[in-house]
Amino acid sequence: MPSLSLSNPVFAAYAVCAALLVLKMAAMSWLTVYRMLRINGGMRNPEDAQAGLANPRPRPGQLDPVDYVERIRRIHQNDQENLLPFLAIGWLFVLTGPDPAIAKALFYGYVVSRLLHFVAYLTARPHEWRATLWTVGSLIMIGMAGATLWAALRA
Amino acid sequence: MPSLSLSNPVFAAYAVCAALLVLKMAAMSWLTVYRMLRINGGMRNPEDAQAGLANPRPRPGQLDPVDYVERIRRIHQNDQENLLPFLAIGWLFVLTGPDPAIAKALFYGYVVSRLLHFVAYLTARPHEWRATLWTVGSLIMIGMAGATLWAALRA
Amino acid sequence: MPSLSLSNPVFAAYAVCAALLVLKMAAMSWLTVYRMLRINGGMRNPEDAQAGLANPRPRPGQLDPVDYVERIRRIHQNDQENLLPFLAIGWLFVLTGPDPAIAKALFYGYVVSRLLHFVAYLTARPHEWRATLWTVGSLIMIGMAGATLWAALRA
Repeated sequence: MPSLSLSNPVFAAYAVCAALLVLKMAAMSWLTVYRMLRINGGMRNPEDAQAGLANPRPRPGQLDPVDYVERIRRIHQNDQENLLPFLAIGWLFVLTGPDPAIAKALFYGYVVSRLLHFVAYLTARPHEWRATLWTVGSLIMIGMAGATLWAALRA
Repeated sequence: MPSLSLSNPVFAAYAVCAALLVLKMAAMSWLTVYRMLRINGGMRNPEDAQAGLANPRPRPGQLDPVDYVERIRRIHQNDQENLLPFLAIGWLFVLTGPDPAIAKALFYGYVVSRLLHFVAYLTARPHEWRATLWTVGSLIMIGMAGATLWAALRA
Repeated sequence: MPSLSLSNPVFAAYAVCAALLVLKMAAMSWLTVYRMLRINGGMRNPEDAQAGLANPRPRPGQLDPVDYVERIRRIHQNDQENLLPFLAIGWLFVLTGPDPAIAKALFYGYVVSRLLHFVAYLTARPHEWRATLWTVGSLIMIGMAGATLWAALRA
């Protein structure tokens, strides 16, 4: 019976990937903050355009969308659509007792595909790059969900 | 003590539902891709409107929002707001040791309510249909969260 | 070995916080509904602007964004960006066997920081308040992810 403890190498691999992905999402929040501060714009809340410690030089248009900031928001949104369901299914997949080498390859492959997806997205590479890398991650997640469904239905 | 293993029928029901809901969310991503390709529009990234393998016939307005695509994005967003917290609370609810028949009814009822919600949303049924189906799912989730809170506070 | 059962006080604290945060997110959904009904506007779906049981007095502009409603949507979005990864990493952090007092302080501190963040956001307090409270929560989450990564890599 696969256990949910860090002494189970497959579960430990899941935990490593989960921590990396959570840190990745946190980095998107901070990158949004950094970019808003750097251009002194791209904010979304009316109160953020008022003078204050964080906004010493208010100017018109601070609430207008700017791609420099919106791009990070889209990346962050894409993470929410993908990483969060992956985190929800990953540990259930561990409980199906997969082959350890395959499971670890899927976990780490997912993280690598998402980091490359981030680079392609951030640097506005041609659509095909981003789409291909996104597809790799999506298929890994679908595979894990399918394997979990199969195992849980037969349990 | 309820266990987090597929040999526990209540947990297995959770795992079945979690896998179905993750697959449902993945389907929303792919449906968005399908609809963007089909109308050759509704994209969000400037680089997606440039000529390339995925965009052989660039045309003006490819980045304009189109309801045909935006509707799927709204459905996907609604899933994120609802399915992800449900997945987070569902397995904790299993650990409270609920009546197996009730727990299974809630899990499968949730999945059914969300699939019907999807159909009502996709086909733009009158607001009341969507609202009613959404309410069923929301109340199930709130009930599970309340039961978990109660059990964890008394533990 | 820390267990994932409610008889483990640290895990029970996680479960209490998870239930509270899920209820908080559900409240955002219902608050959005309440505000849309109250001003009879701020909807997003074309079919919601048609006459019906839920919309007895249709009027032009019901689909126009209104800050009274959009503010709740932004708060809800912020919850998704923050609470969901926190829920994903929180129980893994429990498995690293943290000091119980510190772990409980982090869990409950996170919930308190997010409730205060909600109040500051809802009442449109100056940016600095919201930013400070958000930072507290973000750092707690980053700390848990870092501790989990460290423990899982050494396991």
